Amino acid sequence: MIGLSSYAGVMESLVNSAEDQQRSSPLGNSWSKKEDLNRNQGLKGVGGFVLVHAGAGYHSESKAKEYKHVCKRACQRAVDRLKAGALAVEAVAAALVELEDSPFTNAGLGSNLNLSGEIECDASIMDGKSLQFGAVGAISGIKNPVLVANCLLSEAQKGKLSAGRIPPCFLVGRGANEWAISHGIPPCPSEKMTTKFSLSAYKRNKRKMEVAEKMNTGHNQTKKIRLSAENDSGCLDTVGAVVVDLEGNVAAAVSSGGLAMKHPGRVGQAAHYGCGCWAQNACNMNPYATAVSTSGCGEHLIRTMLARDCSAAMQSEDAHQALLEAMQNKFISSPFLASEDCVLGGVIVLRCCRCVEAQNIQGILGATRQQSNADLQTSSWGY
Amino acid sequence: MIGLSSYAGVMESLVNSAEDQQRSSPLGNSWSKKEDLNRNQGLKGVGGFVLVHAGAGYHSESKAKEYKHVCKRACQRAVDRLKAGALAVEAVAAALVELEDSPFTNAGLGSNLNLSGEIECDASIMDGKSLQFGAVGAISGIKNPVLVANCLLSEAQKGKLSAGRIPPCFLVGRGANEWAISHGIPPCPSEKMTTKFSLSAYKRNKRKMEVAEKMNTGHNQTKKIRLSAENDSGCLDTVGAVVVDLEGNVAAAVSSGGLAMKHPGRVGQAAHYGCGCWAQNACNMNPYATAVSTSGCGEHLIRTMLARDCSAAMQSEDAHQALLEAMQNKFISSPFLASEDCVLGGVIVLRCCRCVEAQNIQGILGATRQQSNADLQTSSWGY
Repeated sequence: MIGLSSYAGVMESLVNSAEDQQRSSPLGNSWSKKEDLNRNQGLKGVGGFVLVHAGAGYHSESKAKEYKHVCKRACQRAVDRLKAGALAVEAVAAALVELEDSPFTNAGLGSNLNLSGEIECDASIMDGKSLQFGAVGAISGIKNPVLVANCLLSEAQKGKLSAGRIPPCFLVGRGANEWAISHGIPPCPSEKMTTKFSLSAYKRNKRKMEVAEKMNTGHNQTKKIRLSAENDSGCLDTVGAVVVDLEGNVAAAVSSGGLAMKHPGRVGQAAHYGCGCWAQNACNMNPYATAVSTSGCGEHLIRTMLARDCSAAMQSEDAHQALLEAMQNKFISSPFLASEDCVLGGVIVLRCCRCVEAQNIQGILGATRQQSNADLQTSSWGY
Repeated sequence: MIGLSSYAGVMESLVNSAEDQQRSSPLGNSWSKKEDLNRNQGLKGVGGFVLVHAGAGYHSESKAKEYKHVCKRACQRAVDRLKAGALAVEAVAAALVELEDSPFTNAGLGSNLNLSGEIECDASIMDGKSLQFGAVGAISGIKNPVLVANCLLSEAQKGKLSAGRIPPCFLVGRGANEWAISHGIPPCPSEKMTTKFSLSAYKRNKRKMEVAEKMNTGHNQTKKIRLSAENDSGCLDTVGAVVVDLEGNVAAAVSSGGLAMKHPGRVGQAAHYGCGCWAQNACNMNPYATAVSTSGCGEHLIRTMLARDCSAAMQSEDAHQALLEAMQNKFISSPFLASEDCVLGGVIVLRCCRCVEAQNIQGILGATRQQSNADLQTSSWGY
């Protein structure tokens, strides 16, 4: 088991995919500062960029290879779409589908089970070009929640429904499932989405809960809190991706099975506007296009609206410093999380500005370290 | 029928309730600018303030008296709680319960029915002191959704659950209903929450939809869009309240049955962090405590995060001007709503700073006018 700050990040530019791959970072303690990589090279002709992660959380080291592979496959899927002329929003959805389809990630297939032993997923997607957003929360029986979120986004772009009704941007629960099926997204029986791994994790977590609750009986509150911290086995590994396409449009997406043993109906940051992902093209006021996807404890990421705040911070000149400050001031030291004993979260960030017919792109990852409120690791690349 | 900008606002200070009542504004076209009332009187000894509204939307003029009465009752409930020493968050919840219990408002009892003829409610509450937040989305079978949101907020303040699990801040659908009942909130059969008024509105809307869909068949898209605008009969009247207590703590809450004929599972701004309500006590960085509650088209209010942005704007010296600018720049002219032909929304805002043992309080209402993207009405009072 390794710490929260373990991200699986793989990126590929459309031109220099071979060179990029050697910079890809597998799971592990390799997220030490790499400030020397924070350069803006502004290579002429380089276009398009994909950055994905398989989540902040407690991963099994034995599966490190799998995580790396799925991240590479997700990148490749998105890159293929970009090469075929797709917009960023289509490419980011394609990357997410690959991440959701892996039984090793906590999204789609193989998601954490909730208290009742069911799978309920959250996902959202944002298109930096249209600034449209689509999200689903606590949705069951759908293998690829990101496709429902993407379909909501597309439908909203078509304008009003009959009799002037405004199309929804956020659907939850049974209604979300029904809407998805009525829009051509195939249902998937819950038993097919449950893996041996997720089921055994559920049984293990349930036993832990029972032991914790038994031990707490008759003990004082101090002991209860201490025990709770020791047994913090919630798997936080939301997956996400950020993409810039050949035209400089950005998009971001996020998908999650949510916390292990969550209460049915609990919705985390992955379905929450401004919290799970953010994408905003460059415009008059913002010189940089930015895309952000977050991972970590959903409640912490909701209450700090980390995706939007990181995006706003990335308009500063020094992207690396801006992300460090945003993670420190808007998350780790946020007054909204002052009562929390351990603040857990991470982001992948992409920013892009066009310079003389080329794209100047930076991708950065930042995350809190496990068991610490005052530390931050970032890694970054410039293209 | 009257326009979107019709708010029912009633407020009472704890000391000068008689004087305040004559300034209360019933439904109607009385929301012309009242800049002369935008004074900071800083009365010594005046403490506590309650501001409620029964929603932006299409109200029947025949029920204007009822709306005014329910707003007064809601204010009185909150004032009574404040007089008994309650904190702002308890008082604001009490006001919301009264608003939800009215069969005339689109919240709790008498809520709009969705496409399937069911009631699904959204509600949220935020405590400016602890900065905790609780929300429920698409919840059925609970008469007072705000009490579930408030219970989520209270439970989160108690710290982690067994085995280190993080308590949820946002629950939806069936899971939210089950959580509420397991926490002592009584269930309420759907048929008891449906009123004659909401049922007849549902039947009327359904007929309109059928006619609109029939007329659209065989016609071109232009005609379809025009027809849609003409038949825009969605009832937008979310209810809300903002409160400051004797200690200067603020709280805000919002509750809604959502858009009429919404898709099942649709969640609007009333359950969305930063969008439906916001409350933040004064601190080192913010001289003013602020509380905001929004009403209008949920999708528009989500995509602009209007509650949080209005709260941030209210740190400017001139509260009235700050709200005007926030409504204009962050909502009406927001790039996030550039594709919308009609932007609909309103806010109630309260800000407070302590000056020489007294509270300097301002309450302001702002709303877009019906069928206009570039107009704004505000009313404000200073105490």
